[in-house]
Amino acid sequence: MRCEVVAVGTELLLGQIVDTNSSWIGEQLALAGIDSYFQTKVGDNHARIVAAFRQALERSDAVIVCGGLGPTQDDITRQAIAEVMGVDLELDDEVAARIEAMFGSRGRRMPMNNLLQAEVPVGATAILDPFPGTAPGLLCPIGDKVLYAVPGVPYEMRAIVEQAIIPDLRARAGVTATIRSRTLRTWGESESGLAERLAGRIKALDVAGNPTIAFLASGIEGLKVRITAKGSDDAAADALLDAEEVELRALLGELVFGLDDENMEQAVLAMLEQRGLTLGLAESLTGGLIAARLCDVPGASAVLRGSIVAYASDVKHDVLGVPEGPVVSDTAVEAMAAGARRVLGSDIGLAVTGVAGPDGQEGHEPGTVFIGIDLGALGAGPTSLASRLPGDRQRVREFTVITALGALRQQLLGVDGPVGLG
Amino acid sequence: MRCEVVAVGTELLLGQIVDTNSSWIGEQLALAGIDSYFQTKVGDNHARIVAAFRQALERSDAVIVCGGLGPTQDDITRQAIAEVMGVDLELDDEVAARIEAMFGSRGRRMPMNNLLQAEVPVGATAILDPFPGTAPGLLCPIGDKVLYAVPGVPYEMRAIVEQAIIPDLRARAGVTATIRSRTLRTWGESESGLAERLAGRIKALDVAGNPTIAFLASGIEGLKVRITAKGSDDAAADALLDAEEVELRALLGELVFGLDDENMEQAVLAMLEQRGLTLGLAESLTGGLIAARLCDVPGASAVLRGSIVAYASDVKHDVLGVPEGPVVSDTAVEAMAAGARRVLGSDIGLAVTGVAGPDGQEGHEPGTVFIGIDLGALGAGPTSLASRLPGDRQRVREFTVITALGALRQQLLGVDGPVGLG
Repeated sequence: MRCEVVAVGTELLLGQIVDTNSSWIGEQLALAGIDSYFQTKVGDNHARIVAAFRQALERSDAVIVCGGLGPTQDDITRQAIAEVMGVDLELDDEVAARIEAMFGSRGRRMPMNNLLQAEVPVGATAILDPFPGTAPGLLCPIGDKVLYAVPGVPYEMRAIVEQAIIPDLRARAGVTATIRSRTLRTWGESESGLAERLAGRIKALDVAGNPTIAFLASGIEGLKVRITAKGSDDAAADALLDAEEVELRALLGELVFGLDDENMEQAVLAMLEQRGLTLGLAESLTGGLIAARLCDVPGASAVLRGSIVAYASDVKHDVLGVPEGPVVSDTAVEAMAAGARRVLGSDIGLAVTGVAGPDGQEGHEPGTVFIGIDLGALGAGPTSLASRLPGDRQRVREFTVITALGALRQQLLGVDGPVGLG
Repeated sequence: MRCEVVAVGTELLLGQIVDTNSSWIGEQLALAGIDSYFQTKVGDNHARIVAAFRQALERSDAVIVCGGLGPTQDDITRQAIAEVMGVDLELDDEVAARIEAMFGSRGRRMPMNNLLQAEVPVGATAILDPFPGTAPGLLCPIGDKVLYAVPGVPYEMRAIVEQAIIPDLRARAGVTATIRSRTLRTWGESESGLAERLAGRIKALDVAGNPTIAFLASGIEGLKVRITAKGSDDAAADALLDAEEVELRALLGELVFGLDDENMEQAVLAMLEQRGLTLGLAESLTGGLIAARLCDVPGASAVLRGSIVAYASDVKHDVLGVPEGPVVSDTAVEAMAAGARRVLGSDIGLAVTGVAGPDGQEGHEPGTVFIGIDLGALGAGPTSLASRLPGDRQRVREFTVITALGALRQQLLGVDGPVGLG
């Protein structure tokens, strides 16, 4: 079974949007054990889109088309599909009703253009994505092959690919062998450092060939170690993943903070919730980013009380009680951590101050960051550490988030036993 | 003159690396006035690489190949080019000497593998990049067409494309025409709503053909209307852009908040700074995201005093002075806006509360959002508006950011004259 990807949109060719959709789809195909040999980008031109579809169908058994399903004049994917299928477009009443209902639920009038999105090539089936997006996916049988179309909006595209297209492809392929992967999320060691710790294991796996491991550096998300295993079925593949996870955890120890999509925010929130502790933040250079990322985790409200984003210096003094003097210092960040606990009424206080750049501040280079932690009843007063982070303004702020949360995690690991319970 | 891009690398198909190189090359081609209609990704497979090269050469006058020039087993681009040219590879002494010198200068022994990078198809010319990268680019004449190969390392690739390939392409094309584009950033109307407002203009432009306009939906970034104009030189293209911008602004009015990379955060910060006003935030469901995005803008500190992220209800009551009662309500959000002004000592207070989901709260559906604005001396007390936003937890929070900032922008537009000055 071969499936290739065609991304439609002049903005992709002009480089105004980077085509991350095709990359993501390629990864899903690989994980599903479906071969994918080509990816094509084509602009919003009818003849060229038709040519791209025809060629992809020649080379492969299935094609996933991404983009061009919107309601505007330059969204012409469905017309191109109809031409390749040699059929007309017809209004799908169910889709039309769904689109009208979607606008209704937002109390907005539906522009007539949106009804274009309910047009489906005769013989094709609309795939309604589980979110109330307006553009449905399309499943289009073409001879003994199949063409799927998905919207370019990533979250709609992903839902349709994961829940409808991949299962359909696997069924058509009669795929029995499964490829499964699991990712160990790590923080606190460089990529080469991880490679050294795992050198022996990597050699052994190269010989055996299954499972395999790979490193993926992902900035604010930390360093990922991905295990990929092939098995006769999911259970067999998972058994290999389980065994390898044990091997790797033995070598990596506390560096591993989570699995797969579990990020540092979730790991820290889970540790605090287990211990029955609440968290208050005081943020300067991150400007609310730590709180915002913690709030991305459903259920964060059980732990996170809030954050005092003290961007102006006198807010640090007046609201958080930071003593007069430099605000990029260990003294200031420890006072901020204590102030966060006091003002927000939390068990734990975590604070950051520093220089995001582009300019220096108080004689510190951009990238200079101070992290303050007040464990309250669990500790002996506020403590702090200084760090020097790489990159531009945005990267410094993002690395500050995971560095601060990683530091809090280390302190909590250091606190013995089932603390704070009751 | 048509030039297309072929990116070589299995890791691109597997989604392990996002192909940003092709996007960047596409942008350079567009700015140079060279048409580019297709981009292809192909894995490290000799037959398929050869097939991709041959097809690209059929469709276009020139092809830029990116990647596969390294020293390892799976770097087979130069062999594929040699096959397409029907020639052998030969060692280029100048390149070999350069590579050895490069290693020497770093005090490292050159692995023999690296000499493979000095192999050039007979009849092709090595393009030595100005940086001391080991892989040179290749200029390969094929009949009356040309194929260029560049390394996948972005900074080497960019140097060779900018300094050697684009000038060579323009010379071959005798290009004098330039393509320039400009993007109007809008908020407050749906994509199809914009299409309706601009329908007449779109028809007129379809007839004339230059400039053209396209819509780009970009979530939290709002809706973009991109104008693309072709001209004999930059000045001529810019003149067309200027004229079209005037036409579109007349039709879109206040919906346009910025140009090109100017986002809503910058637009609002600029309005406040012009008026000499400071801003304080109170955030519930956004959890600091509004402050974090404002802080992404260098110079935000001139306007933004900070944010009280009141995630727990009693923080809303205790810190912000929200009266007892429901916290997802107009009363609560207006008290939050006033509280932000008071606690943070700012001229303006902006607050948001609502339900991000997945669960409802206080009988409100996920997506229910209240926005509060306290213009202080400029207004008659806090005001609020309710909104219903689409999507999952994360999208609701992101849309809340631009919706709240857009609402503040509208209020500031409504305030007459040079207010707040002195």
